[in-house]
Parts: sequence; C-alpha cells; structure tokens
Amino acid sequence: MPKIIVEIMPKQDLLDPQGKAVANALRRAGNDVETTRIGKRIELHYKNQPTEKDLEKAKELAKDFLSNSVIEDVVDVYIEGQN
Amino acid sequence: MPKIIVEIMPKQDLLDPQGKAVANALRRAGNDVETTRIGKRIELHYKNQPTEKDLEKAKELAKDFLSNSVIEDVVDVYIEGQN
Repeated sequence: MPKIIVEIMPKQDLLDPQGKAVANALRRAGNDVETTRIGKRIELHYKNQPTEKDLEKAKELAKDFLSNSVIEDVVDVYIEGQN
Repeated sequence: MPKIIVEIMPKQDLLDPQGKAVANALRRAGNDVETTRIGKRIELHYKNQPTEKDLEKAKELAKDFLSNSVIEDVVDVYIEGQN
C-alpha cells in the first residue's frame, strides 16, 4: 500500500528521558554513542499513490494534528520511495 | 552532530491501537487515509562522522537492542544525509 511517512522528534532543547536511558545503556555496553533521541515515525497508508496535493495535506496534518508543536518538531514528511 | 537514524515499526500483522485511533480521527476529519501505523525513529548521535563500521554496529544494535523482534521490524538504518 502506498505510504506517506511523517517523522517527528522531540525538540532539541527538551529532555528526552527515554533517549537518555537508551544512550546510557548503549555506553555501558561499550558503544561510543554520544546521545540518542527517540521520536515517532508515522506511516499514513493510502489506497492510491499519493499525489503532491496529498503530500501538502499530510504536511499540514503532521504540523497541526500528528505532532505537538510545543514539544515536538516535524523533521520530515515524504512519499515512500521518493525521499 | 552526525547521526545514524534507526527506524522501527510494529509488525504488519500486529494490532497497533494507537495507529488505529489516529486513522479513525483522520478519517472523521475528512481525510482519505486508509490506515496509519506508528513506530519509532531513533537518532544515535556520534562525536565523529559515523563510518561503515559504525553503521554495521548500529544495524546489530537496532536488531538486538533497540527493537523487540517479537513485535517490531527494523525498517531502515542509515547515516543521516546518506539515504
């Protein structure tokens, strides 16, 4: 099924305790990861191949509905296979 | 800071109640989205530009540590800017 992918991350200056816990665990296991951030990847599935208009609509939805602009940034919205 | 991105989604045949709720709300608002699935986007931040070796390591971590293979699939692991 054709998809539009929406990627949302917690804002840079926001604490991300889940990400911090993962980073600590990774470092304890000997990996040289500095930090990790954990966000969301939302797939919107469409019956037909999404058009540019669907993509515009999805970008609006990502900003107004799928993310909380107080604490999150929409980092990417793209049609799968076209990024 | 250079990043490796890990993308994880719930398995296809798994119920995703959060995704279902979002799809219902989107449809009620008049969007022609069929379904939505909600997964995770994990950023691993490195001090230096990650190498192919770091990427291999991150793929292992994604499979063994960052995802739960019983309920999740790792859909992509890539160095930011190189996908």
